[in-house]
Amino acid sequence: MMSSTEYRASLDDGRRVFFGGERVADVRTHEVIGPCADIVAASYDLISERYPDGSPFTLTPRSLEDLRAANDAIRPLGIMTLLTYASMMAMSTAASRIGEAAPNSEYPERIRGMLEEFRERDVRFAQCITDAKGDRRLPPGKQSDPDAYTRVVRRSAEGVWIRGAKLHITGASLAHELMVIPTKAMKPGEEDYAIACCVPVGSEGVTIVDTSTAPSRAEVPESPFSSHDSFPEAMVIFEDVFVPNDRIMLDGDIGFASIFAHSLGLWERVAGLTHMVDDADLLVGLAHLIAEANGLLKVSHINQKISDLIMHATMLRASLEAALGHGSQGHDGTVFPNELYTNAGKYFGASSWHPMVQKVQEIAGGSVITAPTRADMDNPEIGPAVKQHMAGATGDGEYRARLFHAIKDLTAGNFGGWKAVTKVQGGGGLYAQRIVTRKHFDLDAARDAALAATGLSVPPPVADTP
Amino acid sequence: MMSSTEYRASLDDGRRVFFGGERVADVRTHEVIGPCADIVAASYDLISERYPDGSPFTLTPRSLEDLRAANDAIRPLGIMTLLTYASMMAMSTAASRIGEAAPNSEYPERIRGMLEEFRERDVRFAQCITDAKGDRRLPPGKQSDPDAYTRVVRRSAEGVWIRGAKLHITGASLAHELMVIPTKAMKPGEEDYAIACCVPVGSEGVTIVDTSTAPSRAEVPESPFSSHDSFPEAMVIFEDVFVPNDRIMLDGDIGFASIFAHSLGLWERVAGLTHMVDDADLLVGLAHLIAEANGLLKVSHINQKISDLIMHATMLRASLEAALGHGSQGHDGTVFPNELYTNAGKYFGASSWHPMVQKVQEIAGGSVITAPTRADMDNPEIGPAVKQHMAGATGDGEYRARLFHAIKDLTAGNFGGWKAVTKVQGGGGLYAQRIVTRKHFDLDAARDAALAATGLSVPPPVADTP
Amino acid sequence: MMSSTEYRASLDDGRRVFFGGERVADVRTHEVIGPCADIVAASYDLISERYPDGSPFTLTPRSLEDLRAANDAIRPLGIMTLLTYASMMAMSTAASRIGEAAPNSEYPERIRGMLEEFRERDVRFAQCITDAKGDRRLPPGKQSDPDAYTRVVRRSAEGVWIRGAKLHITGASLAHELMVIPTKAMKPGEEDYAIACCVPVGSEGVTIVDTSTAPSRAEVPESPFSSHDSFPEAMVIFEDVFVPNDRIMLDGDIGFASIFAHSLGLWERVAGLTHMVDDADLLVGLAHLIAEANGLLKVSHINQKISDLIMHATMLRASLEAALGHGSQGHDGTVFPNELYTNAGKYFGASSWHPMVQKVQEIAGGSVITAPTRADMDNPEIGPAVKQHMAGATGDGEYRARLFHAIKDLTAGNFGGWKAVTKVQGGGGLYAQRIVTRKHFDLDAARDAALAATGLSVPPPVADTP
Amino acid sequence: MMSSTEYRASLDDGRRVFFGGERVADVRTHEVIGPCADIVAASYDLISERYPDGSPFTLTPRSLEDLRAANDAIRPLGIMTLLTYASMMAMSTAASRIGEAAPNSEYPERIRGMLEEFRERDVRFAQCITDAKGDRRLPPGKQSDPDAYTRVVRRSAEGVWIRGAKLHITGASLAHELMVIPTKAMKPGEEDYAIACCVPVGSEGVTIVDTSTAPSRAEVPESPFSSHDSFPEAMVIFEDVFVPNDRIMLDGDIGFASIFAHSLGLWERVAGLTHMVDDADLLVGLAHLIAEANGLLKVSHINQKISDLIMHATMLRASLEAALGHGSQGHDGTVFPNELYTNAGKYFGASSWHPMVQKVQEIAGGSVITAPTRADMDNPEIGPAVKQHMAGATGDGEYRARLFHAIKDLTAGNFGGWKAVTKVQGGGGLYAQRIVTRKHFDLDAARDAALAATGLSVPPPVADTP
Repeated sequence: MMSSTEYRASLDDGRRVFFGGERVADVRTHEVIGPCADIVAASYDLISERYPDGSPFTLTPRSLEDLRAANDAIRPLGIMTLLTYASMMAMSTAASRIGEAAPNSEYPERIRGMLEEFRERDVRFAQCITDAKGDRRLPPGKQSDPDAYTRVVRRSAEGVWIRGAKLHITGASLAHELMVIPTKAMKPGEEDYAIACCVPVGSEGVTIVDTSTAPSRAEVPESPFSSHDSFPEAMVIFEDVFVPNDRIMLDGDIGFASIFAHSLGLWERVAGLTHMVDDADLLVGLAHLIAEANGLLKVSHINQKISDLIMHATMLRASLEAALGHGSQGHDGTVFPNELYTNAGKYFGASSWHPMVQKVQEIAGGSVITAPTRADMDNPEIGPAVKQHMAGATGDGEYRARLFHAIKDLTAGNFGGWKAVTKVQGGGGLYAQRIVTRKHFDLDAARDAALAATGLSVPPPVADTP
Repeated sequence: MMSSTEYRASLDDGRRVFFGGERVADVRTHEVIGPCADIVAASYDLISERYPDGSPFTLTPRSLEDLRAANDAIRPLGIMTLLTYASMMAMSTAASRIGEAAPNSEYPERIRGMLEEFRERDVRFAQCITDAKGDRRLPPGKQSDPDAYTRVVRRSAEGVWIRGAKLHITGASLAHELMVIPTKAMKPGEEDYAIACCVPVGSEGVTIVDTSTAPSRAEVPESPFSSHDSFPEAMVIFEDVFVPNDRIMLDGDIGFASIFAHSLGLWERVAGLTHMVDDADLLVGLAHLIAEANGLLKVSHINQKISDLIMHATMLRASLEAALGHGSQGHDGTVFPNELYTNAGKYFGASSWHPMVQKVQEIAGGSVITAPTRADMDNPEIGPAVKQHMAGATGDGEYRARLFHAIKDLTAGNFGGWKAVTKVQGGGGLYAQRIVTRKHFDLDAARDAALAATGLSVPPPVADTP
Repeated sequence: MMSSTEYRASLDDGRRVFFGGERVADVRTHEVIGPCADIVAASYDLISERYPDGSPFTLTPRSLEDLRAANDAIRPLGIMTLLTYASMMAMSTAASRIGEAAPNSEYPERIRGMLEEFRERDVRFAQCITDAKGDRRLPPGKQSDPDAYTRVVRRSAEGVWIRGAKLHITGASLAHELMVIPTKAMKPGEEDYAIACCVPVGSEGVTIVDTSTAPSRAEVPESPFSSHDSFPEAMVIFEDVFVPNDRIMLDGDIGFASIFAHSLGLWERVAGLTHMVDDADLLVGLAHLIAEANGLLKVSHINQKISDLIMHATMLRASLEAALGHGSQGHDGTVFPNELYTNAGKYFGASSWHPMVQKVQEIAGGSVITAPTRADMDNPEIGPAVKQHMAGATGDGEYRARLFHAIKDLTAGNFGGWKAVTKVQGGGGLYAQRIVTRKHFDLDAARDAALAATGLSVPPPVADTP
Repeated sequence: MMSSTEYRASLDDGRRVFFGGERVADVRTHEVIGPCADIVAASYDLISERYPDGSPFTLTPRSLEDLRAANDAIRPLGIMTLLTYASMMAMSTAASRIGEAAPNSEYPERIRGMLEEFRERDVRFAQCITDAKGDRRLPPGKQSDPDAYTRVVRRSAEGVWIRGAKLHITGASLAHELMVIPTKAMKPGEEDYAIACCVPVGSEGVTIVDTSTAPSRAEVPESPFSSHDSFPEAMVIFEDVFVPNDRIMLDGDIGFASIFAHSLGLWERVAGLTHMVDDADLLVGLAHLIAEANGLLKVSHINQKISDLIMHATMLRASLEAALGHGSQGHDGTVFPNELYTNAGKYFGASSWHPMVQKVQEIAGGSVITAPTRADMDNPEIGPAVKQHMAGATGDGEYRARLFHAIKDLTAGNFGGWKAVTKVQGGGGLYAQRIVTRKHFDLDAARDAALAATGLSVPPPVADTP
């Protein structure tokens, strides 16, 4: 297993990263990215300490118990660990599904080999899935820019060269490997777009353009969430990057292109759902604490909003329980979460984040956006007065101010905006989750129940008018 | 086990039933109640056939498997069986909970004895819980009418005499036993209101005033749901009804008064949730069939509404799965469904029935309320033209008209109104389910998570101003 | 002006009406339709009394004051008057719009002539717009049944013969004239479907198949709304009905086919919106009265629901005020309500009826569906006990029971179902109102505001790939 | 009228302002506050140019036309002008209402005199209303900290000394006058808290602690909204500040304490509603532009969300039209907007901002939070590739990226969080708007309509049990 020191050393691989229009000399010492590198490094040590025999959660689950254990283990280990877990599970799932569809394919074995190597090296992953997409009405082959979707531009006996860009890539500049997979199903004629592979971050031709919602140094004291959980989001540009054969998970096989997106989608959504369950509890907790600090815990309309938050958190948790409790098993023993409950739960959570945030902000009040800073409270000239006037029912003005800061950070600042958009768009957007839920819902049973109840049977279709 | 013949005979017990302002001579031959008696009778034969060794679902569950098996078994057996199941489970649960709280109490043993007798006799139950309540601001002891809550008006060595009325009693005129329990917790001074007992329907002093949402004879062909599932709702009046000691489950023990309501509440809600899951699927099925018959299945806004119905049905099912999969066990081995998920799921379903019905009505269109009747279609003079003009994409006008009838019956007629109000009010109303969900939600954990995330601890309370 | 006696006499015109599969001998004495005829007759006398100089509301409005005065006058005059008003206003509006588009057309003059005659004769109208439509994916000309949309099947110098059916025709069997108009825009090749005309109800070949949500005689005491406001809904079948030239408002001019639907749509929606404003106030009033009778007026969650109903009623009223206050004037001086606010308001009300009904039912409680009848309360044997136990905070059990009856009638019975579906589907369904609102919303201004705020201008479109 | 130069000079009055824990040497040159001072200065010149004869919108409206004209005029003039307008209108309204209640009071005359002076000096206002409030369960007189509400601590013949703090004070550090008014009604014993007055910002004892959601200098290019509209929010601390008699609008008269809050509330809400109408159009515009740029304008679920935004914008505008069109006139001729429609409209907008923002974010996609910056696009090394991959259907990557920046700025960054919380909390929070709407809704009429429809009359109340 990698140590924090080894992780830091591993980032010195010539990676080409830009931030705010400027080349980043060293991600480890960059004002915004550096603190994130520290967080990942620390998580390596934490994992080594907890799991001296190796990270159990990178092993393919073989039972519902494995699945739940991994899901529980991953929660407190930070976003890069989570992204790595979801990537490796998705590769496992894809290998299983391709193997089921094409027993003679070489891909499953190769993918499993790659997984073994990645486990051995204890790497971290970024998931490169969403393409630039250009005009979204048009498929890859019809775009005026042929690079709107990532594609193979050259092939040799040793491997392929890829070109294009992937968007919304969390943590790219802090990962070792980029898992590059097609964003959607491909059709005949789009073979060059059916490319899935793993690419080391420092490869020649890879450029990472980072943006961030992390707090500035001055804002850190008011940012309990974003100072830990805000990781850079990147556009990753591939300019004729060479990928050797043993890193290719798919090339040209349009029939399997969507398997990767679906496999990753499932694991991304169950991870998203798990986070939503935690975040929903967090909203309940923060709402309750601030209502208490304001002295409003007994006020009926405040209380009712807290109940609404509790209902929401409980329904989300129920869907996660159902998703983990009703997983299914692939032909090779690989276990996956239940697609139906995962997608419905993720959809429910994604579509209710904004209204739940509204409730928390209603409960808390305007100081969410106007509470003075900790620097104000630390200033001996004005600090005592500021703290006096921030004191609520709990009597401690600094405590109450910090609750307002926390609620702002989670719901009403740059990071809160990131949370909100990510809830909605993560795992493919609400629309994608509707589609997948429908695919797995037993519509025939519902129709049969309605027919049985009404004593009817569907008539044969009308012959078309000639 | 009772046969249908024995059941019919058992109804000839002198029961005093009124309907539409008139005394019902014999419920078995009454125009509205009679068909319901036939339905219950038929269910007896069905059960005997399926379960020759006795109804397994009246046995107290000892494991999660028992619980799920009973819940599945009960679904197709009709409303009187369901009411009986919930009543007997509630008695079991109450016995377990009283026994846990008061190891020396005689009630648990007595209740278990009664349950054995009821199983032996294979009786059907009605649940008498909601009191008249008078001015709802006031507790039982403060009402201008002391009978606003059911109470003991006299006691002797042999038993007690009770007086009052219970509202919303489904199937009272078709049951054998009335399970009479307090509607809420009682306080010191309200001992006479802390009465729980079982009363045979034909007892002297019991009067049942029935109302109905069943279709008239002429409306039966358009009423696939209400012609089977609409049972009379009663006000049950107790005018100094004698209850012998061995039928008393509680008398005067105010500390235990709410145990019955909570125990029944749990089983009513899990039954309500189970029905909601089935009804939600039914809405999906009907919506899909009528969209297909209208030729609108591919229209995007129609399709999206069907997806919404599917999301709703799936989240409901997830909560039922979580409720059954996370049941808990009492000190005596009795297994109950999980309170948290049961209540949250019931709340979710109750609060979303109206909007889901709206979607189905939007999908279906105005013919839900204007489709000609089957008698119109059977009339040779106009039938062919009517059927011609009711024909949609499926070409069969009668089929499509009957789908409209079914949707009206379930959502837009008298029975649909009953469904809607019952969804909301069943199991104690949305407010009650919020309260119970909150009671079982782990609020401390949510607060601790928020405190951990923000690095804060709750300050000690401010000393009150003298 | 017609008297009630004359109206009753006018119904004896050989009209061919069916109800429940049977021919109606005389609508005036029919058990279900007869009471409605009485209501219309009474409204004639009421109008004569109030407006001895003739119904002012059938005159084409020439100013915003006229418009508001007519809208106010029409409210208490019953549904047949309202339908007549909307029909005549729609004809006026259509005449104005056709005249604007085609200054040489003969239609406007002919329509104005017909209007004069109708005013003179003081007739009542039914609006025949929605066609059978068959497979709704397909346009009129592509249906396997060519009669799925009403069409001209023969022409002579004297007039045309029409065939087809119109659905959801409120009050057809009680009207004098059927205003028959196309349900949508027509395309080349669909000229025979571009037919608008007025047809006397008693014409040969016209068949009316009525359904009803009116209460049975026994249910009348519990039906304060439906016993007055429930009118029969019909399928009106045209089997080669002759229409003379002077009753034809359009024949074959596909360019004008949609003008009628849009004109009627506008007046139907402003009428619908006006009714919604009244119904929204009614929901507030009923909710407040029953909360008071239950003793729950001060309970916070009840109070908040009443506030929600008030907010809803106020926003609806605001949209009606804006619709009437911002009407526009046609080239010939005819004044119409504002399309934008009318459609948005109608949409808002239609999409919020179900949730508002849910709130009222939550406030009221289960007795909405279980309150004993007035016959029960009038029975000397059980009446006193029933009334005692229906007594709430107001002490009068009959008063409270009747409030429950009223809420059931309006929201949870057959008529309540009719209300709900009609709110949603009236005036063309929510989808149609979205389309029309969008058509009249100033999208360019909104885009320009966004561009101005961001300092951007829309780039020229990308040239298509060859 | 003041010029921009005079305005800048006027800020040099010794005002004591803190930001981020440090004393601000000069607000005009401070990194965050300075740009806001520039914006206010520019607005002075703009107004002088447009209105050489003096700002017409500071005159008390005497007719509905005046009211609408002022409301339209104020929209483009920036937030400090708006705050000043609302403050002066509120003072006018309060003077009128106090005069109506107490014809002999000196306050109205004094307030009108102050208004004249303020108009003459052409000052800008900040509204100091919300007190610190301490434990919100407790009234001012019961707080453990007597300064939790602003109060008079000393009186002399020349004036009074006040102490306390006011929260959420927008633009305090850029204003000339602080309008200090009680936050609520006061009761006997709370006379010292019934203080309303105007205090120059530079007065001794006044301390302003600013926070900000303005972009950092580096973020300005991605911040088209916040770089203009984000003004500092302050806690304003009064430490024994002297107020001379001629600046006192109320002292000790508890009967009038709430008149100020209600008067300001009305004008704040109508201003808030006006802004909401503009913002709602902006959301429509941005959603339409980004959908177009993405190539998704024809996709049904995208289109439907745009329709939802249009419906929302139209209903908001309808409520503003109703509020301005139905204003009322005080005894002294002063015209106010309609309270009912203003409050209902404000409530509707406030409670729907979050869901509308969710729709815009769903339409736009994840690039709202991940689009590279303009500095990235300006960098010659990576700019061309970044722009290539940001290009959508409109072909111009920079245009599309800037739309994403704009949506982020308005909805998903620090300023977006400020918008969201301010929508909900501005004008007193949703709860306050419910209360005021209820106060002005004609509940008696609604009850009467329900009673008339049901033929009932409310029974006399039950005599209480002794």
